[in-house]
Amino acid sequence: MNKHENFSEWYNEVIEKAGLTDKRYPVKGMNVWPAYGWKLMRLIDDETRRLVEETNHQEVKFPLLIPEDEFKKEADHIKGFDDQVFWVSHAGRNELDIPLLLRPTSETAMYPVFDLWIRSHTDLPLKTYQIVNVFRYETKQTRAFMRMREIHFFEAHTCHQDEVEAEEQIHEDFEIMDALSKKLCLPYLKLKRTDWDKFPGAEYSVGADALMPTGRLLQIAGIHQYLTNFAKAYNITYEDIDGEHKHVHQTTYGMSERLIGAVVAIHGDDKGVVLPPEVAPIQIRIIPIIYGEDADLLNYCREIEDTLKEMGFRVDIDDHDDLRPGSKFFHSEEKGIPLRLDIGGNEMEDGTVTAVRRDTGKKTVIPYDKLSMNIKEILETMEEEMYDRARQDLEDNMEDAQDFAEMKEEKIYRIGWCGELDCGQYIEEVSDREILGTLYDDKEDHKGQCLSCGKPTVEAVYLCRTH
Amino acid sequence: MNKHENFSEWYNEVIEKAGLTDKRYPVKGMNVWPAYGWKLMRLIDDETRRLVEETNHQEVKFPLLIPEDEFKKEADHIKGFDDQVFWVSHAGRNELDIPLLLRPTSETAMYPVFDLWIRSHTDLPLKTYQIVNVFRYETKQTRAFMRMREIHFFEAHTCHQDEVEAEEQIHEDFEIMDALSKKLCLPYLKLKRTDWDKFPGAEYSVGADALMPTGRLLQIAGIHQYLTNFAKAYNITYEDIDGEHKHVHQTTYGMSERLIGAVVAIHGDDKGVVLPPEVAPIQIRIIPIIYGEDADLLNYCREIEDTLKEMGFRVDIDDHDDLRPGSKFFHSEEKGIPLRLDIGGNEMEDGTVTAVRRDTGKKTVIPYDKLSMNIKEILETMEEEMYDRARQDLEDNMEDAQDFAEMKEEKIYRIGWCGELDCGQYIEEVSDREILGTLYDDKEDHKGQCLSCGKPTVEAVYLCRTH
Repeated sequence: MNKHENFSEWYNEVIEKAGLTDKRYPVKGMNVWPAYGWKLMRLIDDETRRLVEETNHQEVKFPLLIPEDEFKKEADHIKGFDDQVFWVSHAGRNELDIPLLLRPTSETAMYPVFDLWIRSHTDLPLKTYQIVNVFRYETKQTRAFMRMREIHFFEAHTCHQDEVEAEEQIHEDFEIMDALSKKLCLPYLKLKRTDWDKFPGAEYSVGADALMPTGRLLQIAGIHQYLTNFAKAYNITYEDIDGEHKHVHQTTYGMSERLIGAVVAIHGDDKGVVLPPEVAPIQIRIIPIIYGEDADLLNYCREIEDTLKEMGFRVDIDDHDDLRPGSKFFHSEEKGIPLRLDIGGNEMEDGTVTAVRRDTGKKTVIPYDKLSMNIKEILETMEEEMYDRARQDLEDNMEDAQDFAEMKEEKIYRIGWCGELDCGQYIEEVSDREILGTLYDDKEDHKGQCLSCGKPTVEAVYLCRTH
Repeated sequence: MNKHENFSEWYNEVIEKAGLTDKRYPVKGMNVWPAYGWKLMRLIDDETRRLVEETNHQEVKFPLLIPEDEFKKEADHIKGFDDQVFWVSHAGRNELDIPLLLRPTSETAMYPVFDLWIRSHTDLPLKTYQIVNVFRYETKQTRAFMRMREIHFFEAHTCHQDEVEAEEQIHEDFEIMDALSKKLCLPYLKLKRTDWDKFPGAEYSVGADALMPTGRLLQIAGIHQYLTNFAKAYNITYEDIDGEHKHVHQTTYGMSERLIGAVVAIHGDDKGVVLPPEVAPIQIRIIPIIYGEDADLLNYCREIEDTLKEMGFRVDIDDHDDLRPGSKFFHSEEKGIPLRLDIGGNEMEDGTVTAVRRDTGKKTVIPYDKLSMNIKEILETMEEEMYDRARQDLEDNMEDAQDFAEMKEEKIYRIGWCGELDCGQYIEEVSDREILGTLYDDKEDHKGQCLSCGKPTVEAVYLCRTH
């Protein structure tokens, strides 16, 4: 398995060997979550829940099936998703009166009900989210976690009195995303998409893009400003303090299992996946360095396991008596367990353990009485260093380009573009790359010119291939 | 709202007023989970997870869509569900090669993959579970939580070496169910179903039936022994210690949002729902008894709120300044919050709170320094008493009957039945009731005779109407 020689092959192999997914389910684009992979997803969901509930979002759950007539109310939205929906037209032996579709996203399930929930300005802001399965009939090649037909989806939907509040929500969303990206060791770019690439029905969309080892970008989250576009289609109004009826302003924030795909792709190595300590299903694995039987050593290991469990770490012990230590190291590495504790005769005598980091292989001998503090420190350092390495990599892969001839690598190029549709299409075609947009929050000083028409520009535009 | 005059009307009203469900979604049998109801369901799920993980079940997640050909492999199973499935035959503009169906339950999604997961006796027992949405095209009248077309479903699936181990699993399932039923204050009967009423494809089924205030039973869980019925259809084999290939023995355990329906129906009263303390989204509501403004009193209330939060209680405070105490009591009761803490000038002076139980209205004055201990005690007592009251009710509603003329009420009748299909059908028809089976674990001494043919019988058979 060589990550840099053949990324696709490496990726498909390591995720299955780690037990993150099982691709043998007999429907294209729909995989099984085995226990280990599902636990990872649930830990990421828990961290997401913690962050969005801290900011007063409430979890709800809407039905999976959406009636065709509700789905078709917002014109751009239906245009964007029409080719991608799975249809249910029969049940039992009956044809349904109104065809139902499997939600590709939940705007059209939620907004008819939001209309009933919101009466007055005292009902606002309405901040909801749900974590559900959504379905998109992808025609491109599917890939585990990255492009699936059944998707594990987080979606926050909010309603506000006016544009100012809605804009504040988008800032809050990025604070949440920043906090989550630290825990997942996933640095990313916030790029405001072009008009032709925004979410169907949105006023504008900001993509959160992470750099893959291929030099391409992968969108790992989308944050969208709807203004009153959907509110008008679904007639969601409130009575303001003066008794006037107004349309609400809406935003959404979406993420999926792609977070796992990005973590694997960015941090994995030729030995397997490397999981961020905060969300790893097993944070620490104890390996007894034992040949034959040794009840004392095993007891010492179990004592340490219990101590660490009590301290709140997710820890297990590889006590297979038919495996040599080398094989145990191999399994622990393959599963991406952040920290290994090797414990042999020496460690037992000295009252220590030898901690080995999954990402760097760095070893630290820890005395028993400092176990908790030192392990906490190592895991925190590991999280920071994983994040920093990936950020450095992201920065190293960005480059300014003045003309097409300079763009020879799989990199993120900062170019000039005047903003006109024709010029944009020309640039995408000639470069065989996509315009991903401009930085959302840092205005950049970029005195360049449009690669197509040559007009002077002030803002850098990001051009890159995507996954 | 009068529970005993018109149960249906009362039920539909209290669940919506409490915020447990929203029935205004425009598809029959599919409701919206608003935040409060969803939080209750999640707390029940968490308790379920805790119990099944303690017994080494692992959570997995299988796809929603099942290919028709996999679904049709077990003959009885398909016969049982054929009329109830939603079909997906189109996606985008394409007709699918193989029609897909929305899982009504997941045997036929999981077992082709179990076949790949299980190689040897060392892979057994395989104990998995998932919590997912399932779909059944119910033709009977739908009712929130009780009979839905999209169902929130817990399903455990296990594989074992032999029948003995599989039988042990069923005992373990009932230990889990017993523990959960205590927390939910839901006493129930374990009734081994008749052959014509067992789960499609099962060797035998045991229903967990709770008594509704109507005098009818509601099945709140099902535990099923499959033996090798599915293993043969899906060819799930393992190599035993002697190198022989054998079919695995399987069991399942299913529950749904019906648990909520049963809790509401059994414990609710004319003021609204009454939620069991362990799973109530808000366990304690603080009500400042305040007329006008009183910053000191509000601060005292907030201090108590913070103290209780730190102690791990789910607590909130009704600090609406436009509502009189009476309205606040009303809202707290409607939502079924187990404990109210009334705090007025007297309480603040004395350094106390007045705790009011939702179920009995019983008041207790608690000094500040005993807050945590006393509240814990009150909630535990409340849980026990709610359970005991419901159990007493269940026992009071069971009666032996020697002939049809004795069965005049909506009760659970213990009757004699010889076990023959013809006699069973006759008994169901004449009594206009269903045979729900015999007690699963307590063998009863019941020297009676079959109500149909008069043959002597040894075991009591339970006859009742159902929801």
